[in-house]
Amino acid sequence: MNAYAASRRLAAEWLGTAFLLATVIGSGIMAERLAGGNVALALLGNTIPTGAILVVIILVFGPVSGAHFNPAVTIAFWLRREIGAGLAAAYILVQLLGGLAGMLAAHAMFGEALWQVSQKARTGPDQWFAEAVAAFGLLAAIFGTIKFRPEAVAWAVGLYITAAYWFTASTSFANPAVTVARAFTDTFSGIRPVDAPAFIIAQIVGAVIAVLVFNWLLRETKRDG
Amino acid sequence: MNAYAASRRLAAEWLGTAFLLATVIGSGIMAERLAGGNVALALLGNTIPTGAILVVIILVFGPVSGAHFNPAVTIAFWLRREIGAGLAAAYILVQLLGGLAGMLAAHAMFGEALWQVSQKARTGPDQWFAEAVAAFGLLAAIFGTIKFRPEAVAWAVGLYITAAYWFTASTSFANPAVTVARAFTDTFSGIRPVDAPAFIIAQIVGAVIAVLVFNWLLRETKRDG
Amino acid sequence: MNAYAASRRLAAEWLGTAFLLATVIGSGIMAERLAGGNVALALLGNTIPTGAILVVIILVFGPVSGAHFNPAVTIAFWLRREIGAGLAAAYILVQLLGGLAGMLAAHAMFGEALWQVSQKARTGPDQWFAEAVAAFGLLAAIFGTIKFRPEAVAWAVGLYITAAYWFTASTSFANPAVTVARAFTDTFSGIRPVDAPAFIIAQIVGAVIAVLVFNWLLRETKRDG
Amino acid sequence: MNAYAASRRLAAEWLGTAFLLATVIGSGIMAERLAGGNVALALLGNTIPTGAILVVIILVFGPVSGAHFNPAVTIAFWLRREIGAGLAAAYILVQLLGGLAGMLAAHAMFGEALWQVSQKARTGPDQWFAEAVAAFGLLAAIFGTIKFRPEAVAWAVGLYITAAYWFTASTSFANPAVTVARAFTDTFSGIRPVDAPAFIIAQIVGAVIAVLVFNWLLRETKRDG
Repeated sequence: MNAYAASRRLAAEWLGTAFLLATVIGSGIMAERLAGGNVALALLGNTIPTGAILVVIILVFGPVSGAHFNPAVTIAFWLRREIGAGLAAAYILVQLLGGLAGMLAAHAMFGEALWQVSQKARTGPDQWFAEAVAAFGLLAAIFGTIKFRPEAVAWAVGLYITAAYWFTASTSFANPAVTVARAFTDTFSGIRPVDAPAFIIAQIVGAVIAVLVFNWLLRETKRDG
Repeated sequence: MNAYAASRRLAAEWLGTAFLLATVIGSGIMAERLAGGNVALALLGNTIPTGAILVVIILVFGPVSGAHFNPAVTIAFWLRREIGAGLAAAYILVQLLGGLAGMLAAHAMFGEALWQVSQKARTGPDQWFAEAVAAFGLLAAIFGTIKFRPEAVAWAVGLYITAAYWFTASTSFANPAVTVARAFTDTFSGIRPVDAPAFIIAQIVGAVIAVLVFNWLLRETKRDG
Repeated sequence: MNAYAASRRLAAEWLGTAFLLATVIGSGIMAERLAGGNVALALLGNTIPTGAILVVIILVFGPVSGAHFNPAVTIAFWLRREIGAGLAAAYILVQLLGGLAGMLAAHAMFGEALWQVSQKARTGPDQWFAEAVAAFGLLAAIFGTIKFRPEAVAWAVGLYITAAYWFTASTSFANPAVTVARAFTDTFSGIRPVDAPAFIIAQIVGAVIAVLVFNWLLRETKRDG
Repeated sequence: MNAYAASRRLAAEWLGTAFLLATVIGSGIMAERLAGGNVALALLGNTIPTGAILVVIILVFGPVSGAHFNPAVTIAFWLRREIGAGLAAAYILVQLLGGLAGMLAAHAMFGEALWQVSQKARTGPDQWFAEAVAAFGLLAAIFGTIKFRPEAVAWAVGLYITAAYWFTASTSFANPAVTVARAFTDTFSGIRPVDAPAFIIAQIVGAVIAVLVFNWLLRETKRDG
């Protein structure tokens, strides 16, 4: 891969992750401001945009970078030897930077202080278990579609996160870059920095288990539909 | 079929049904907790995740096991001689176990007691008729797409259940494994164990009628669009 | 066309229209009962199921009957000489009967009196104009996709009605069989029988204009994307 | 291109933009009237129809005119030398006229005064930045799909706007024809005429930046999924 190819891959990961975080944090701010205290309505106004933008950014950037936007996904593909260690490390770095850029953009658009520190506690074994389940399911959605129905990956991921915002007690961060960026917003979608590391560990554990399970499950599957 | 092929089929049915129930029960808990007493909003927060996860798990596990996740569906395919009696029985067993596992996972994620007994009455001829309609329609969605547009099955099922949560008075269980698992949660989506058998009978009646009707209706259909 | 082919076409039109009306009326009852007086929430609980079931029934019955489920659509295809007068008349008859069957099924599922007469006034030039626009747009969605992207018709119709429930002041009946059936329910989705004829005339006017406009607009179009 | 081809292109742009504005403004009126003062619910009732109609009108009119419906999009394609200056100017004119026609149709359907002047202030650097982001993202959704997955453009645009209504502080006008038409409605979706020019400039800036970025990003991309 030449320098141009690498640079546009990294640009795609940066830009896609920035749009993801701008949407997660921005729609959270909009939804909470407008919902009049009804949290179910606020979460709906956070869920629908997040699911929608995931479909869009995977469609748009997939042909360029593979559309990871998520260090747990990049680690999973590295474990499957589908991406080299050097490029994987670069992906993770730009994902983290892109997530922070999206957070800043959301704050700028909504007239919020650019850098904030979240006060929202998200901790405890229930939440950690939820994050491991969330990341396991996200990788299941990717592995289960990328081989036989690559055109469906974007939909599977967008719909999976739409569901997981509601069925996991943690509202499914499922993404270390998302977790880091959300530590720096004290709005609807925030998480206390002190709670972030355990979330990230749980996400990576869930992703690694998914690699093992789906390597076994899909080993000999032929397309049949 | 060798032992490996059989075991990964059963694993796919177990895992898919677990995700289905984790979503049905988990999103019900989340939605009820957040909705501030507005049941329409709670049902919306239960419907959208359920429809979304159905699309995902059918896309992901369809190439492995056919993505039944539902004893009524397995019975219907057995009546159509598309699955043998032994494998069908094994499917039904792991669907029931997977549903219970998903129920346990939802309870664990939300810090609920792992095993509960529902107190929610769901009974009477209106509800039984609704369950028969719900299961008939679900099989219609499957039979009507699987032959000519197999790539659309996941969407047809997810959208059908999205609609059926609202147009059937019973909120469309339409699935014996779902019914059994929901008997053991005393949350939004529960059903009293005493009410479960009649629901299951109605679901199977609806599925059998669908087999008869669609065997006739689709006998000579050619793809035409 | 032999008797078997004709009978299964008519069965498909009957069954599909029955599911359409069961959903429109049933989800309207469910949504109004649960929405606690918030009409926007009730309309959302009516819109999402209606859009979803339209996608499903067009996918399922399209290969059998063409999935009209709507006398205005059948008249439009007859004007385009794509269906004969005799079959068109039979289609319209079973659509009307299917719509009534769906209404009865919805009432039975929700424990309502089977036959009711709506008291809800829906009249005046604004509403009639809205119905003509609604039907024009519905036929535009069909004509614009059926030639070059037949696999997209189901989606175009489901999404069009999802939008039209909100952007037309009449909530977009856009279908004489729907209008007749909704005259006999005194629930959320009803319309006074006395108001039905003007709605039906407006729908047919909108459909005829769409035939003229799109015959001109699409005459020489080549697929280009 | 002969006169017939040009005239039907312009008719498609006019009609599609009219449906877009009828939906944006009409669903805004409906949603605000029904939402009982809950603005999150009103915005949801405005978002879902807008996203849905975008998918429909791009599917329907795409094969005829390319489905721009937006002067910022037309300018972007002109910068990429994919449309000539004369046709581009004609596109922009009929988009503006179509938007006004859709606004008039919405007002007529809902019994509102046909011409109104909005009193709603939408101004300030946060909002202008949001509009530039909104337009950049819209062009990203188009450029990123049109080359390798043209059948996905309609979905990408509909889902992008669904997200952008919530993640941009301005609710994502992202379209000069939409902005002009919304200046003449004093309902939910209005914008004061005095605030419109800055919105339009920001939109064009965002679109031009998208042209530059995506020309670089997608220069050598091969389809790979």
